[in-house]
Amino acid sequence: MYKKILEILLEKNDYVSGEELGKLLNISRSAVWKNINKLRENGYEIDSVTKKGYKILNNNDILNEAEIKSAIKNKSFIKKIYYYDQVDSTNNELKHILSENTEEGIIVVSDIQTSGRGRLGRTWVSPKQTGIYISLSLTPNIMPFECSSLTLVAALAVSNALKNVCNVPASIKWPNDILINNKKVCGILTEMSAEIDKLNYIIIGTGINVSTEFFDEELNKTATSIFLETNKKFERKKIISEFLFEFEKYYNKFCEENGFSEILEEYKQNCITLNKKVKVLCKESFLGTAVGVTEKGELIVKLMDGEERVVSSGEVSIR
Amino acid sequence: MYKKILEILLEKNDYVSGEELGKLLNISRSAVWKNINKLRENGYEIDSVTKKGYKILNNNDILNEAEIKSAIKNKSFIKKIYYYDQVDSTNNELKHILSENTEEGIIVVSDIQTSGRGRLGRTWVSPKQTGIYISLSLTPNIMPFECSSLTLVAALAVSNALKNVCNVPASIKWPNDILINNKKVCGILTEMSAEIDKLNYIIIGTGINVSTEFFDEELNKTATSIFLETNKKFERKKIISEFLFEFEKYYNKFCEENGFSEILEEYKQNCITLNKKVKVLCKESFLGTAVGVTEKGELIVKLMDGEERVVSSGEVSIR
Repeated sequence: MYKKILEILLEKNDYVSGEELGKLLNISRSAVWKNINKLRENGYEIDSVTKKGYKILNNNDILNEAEIKSAIKNKSFIKKIYYYDQVDSTNNELKHILSENTEEGIIVVSDIQTSGRGRLGRTWVSPKQTGIYISLSLTPNIMPFECSSLTLVAALAVSNALKNVCNVPASIKWPNDILINNKKVCGILTEMSAEIDKLNYIIIGTGINVSTEFFDEELNKTATSIFLETNKKFERKKIISEFLFEFEKYYNKFCEENGFSEILEEYKQNCITLNKKVKVLCKESFLGTAVGVTEKGELIVKLMDGEERVVSSGEVSIR
Repeated sequence: MYKKILEILLEKNDYVSGEELGKLLNISRSAVWKNINKLRENGYEIDSVTKKGYKILNNNDILNEAEIKSAIKNKSFIKKIYYYDQVDSTNNELKHILSENTEEGIIVVSDIQTSGRGRLGRTWVSPKQTGIYISLSLTPNIMPFECSSLTLVAALAVSNALKNVCNVPASIKWPNDILINNKKVCGILTEMSAEIDKLNYIIIGTGINVSTEFFDEELNKTATSIFLETNKKFERKKIISEFLFEFEKYYNKFCEENGFSEILEEYKQNCITLNKKVKVLCKESFLGTAVGVTEKGELIVKLMDGEERVVSSGEVSIR
């Protein structure tokens, strides 16, 4: 009932009388009033005016299923929303969900991750009420080895979302870190389950530092948040909504047209790694200049002697 | 206690006195006697001779953890054995186990699969007490796109195991079906979980028709069993043991040397598809002659006009 009252107030975004709420949900005025109080206890600022009713004034960046549902613009793409106050990692949680029922367009969002993971087995610090931790399921009709460029598509979508909502100069460090002023604000962990020649599903896991006010000394050298860069607090649901909207736009292109090639030019324009001197860390590390990105999403690095190498994995740092 | 008595009797493979069993397990003679009766109830033929003790004469092809454990030759490779009377599919069960703890050398064996799966979403009929349904976990240090040839390694291991234990003319239909006299006796479903540039794990799922006495009319056209081909009943644990032994032999080569290339020649010698006219079913089907296998495990098919195509997925039927 609590959730339904919240959904109605969020959807109307205006005063709704206790009588109307009671009628819509077939409950008493006193039950309405109890749930309004519960919303207030949970952090919502709710104005109540005689003869007009109740209106949510401020949600203090609360995340829950109703908030996310009301914020999402492309509701036909996002079929199911799972919200948790805390999970080990949103990717792991989504894997469990998909093991029962593999479906595209499921999202898992959590306020906290106790074991947030990044690429190459690293941890992703995921404290409460400051970040976006979201995982999205996809079942494109592609071969397992074609998945790698989808993680670049996700990076482009996050970069656009941060520019559109927060007006920050976001850029992409190949393959899929989002930087603001050379510090990392977002990481993406893409995982897949597949047979040898058939994809079961892909999970795009995204962590964005939104309202973080400080990092520990070590992280502070390389990490930032939207708040630290803008001195403003943004609602996480608005960033989530824009990310999913931007992602679907590129994803439809990816599925319907020539895979990544249609999106490549835009990716390159947003990729800060290009035309920079880089150090590639892999089995044997080497230095060079990043000169391009292939249609498969690999980085092309030109060595001092003119030789060009194609890098598909590993860590690339900008010098 | 039941399991421990079974393990001791299987290991000794000779008469063990009730007194000795009692001492080893710190239980009474009457408790030993009760458990011996329980073993008999479960299908074991146990001889009991005054002053000599108990000996298992015949296990009637019973499968359980103790039987599998005692049969396995390469015990350092197979670290954990999970046996079930019934699961939906051994691959699914192993996925659940690995989601808690990713480890190499775990096997899941079941007497029945209620939703046995084959390649390309097909079902694998898995009735009780007639087949081997086994899944094995691997965590090789390779990239996700390098996994495909491992399924060919598994096919070679099954083919050798069936030849060694059952003396049948087993051969491989590319990529990983095992045929006897042109009918399918074994299918392999290889699945993986991976990040874009890091493998989490591979599961090799194998289904072998061992003692099946008849198939329905439709399946009978294409399927066979060891029993139907030899008129003999073989113990499933002996085939499991030989398969795992053969698999590790090739797997060590695969990991330590040049991946699949060292094993390729032996695979080709056992691959019945080669030098046959074939029909390749994929997005656009075509006819040709299978002329080779690449070092990645792909099939090379020569068309009428001399063009050679490399096939990495889809269905290839022999004409």
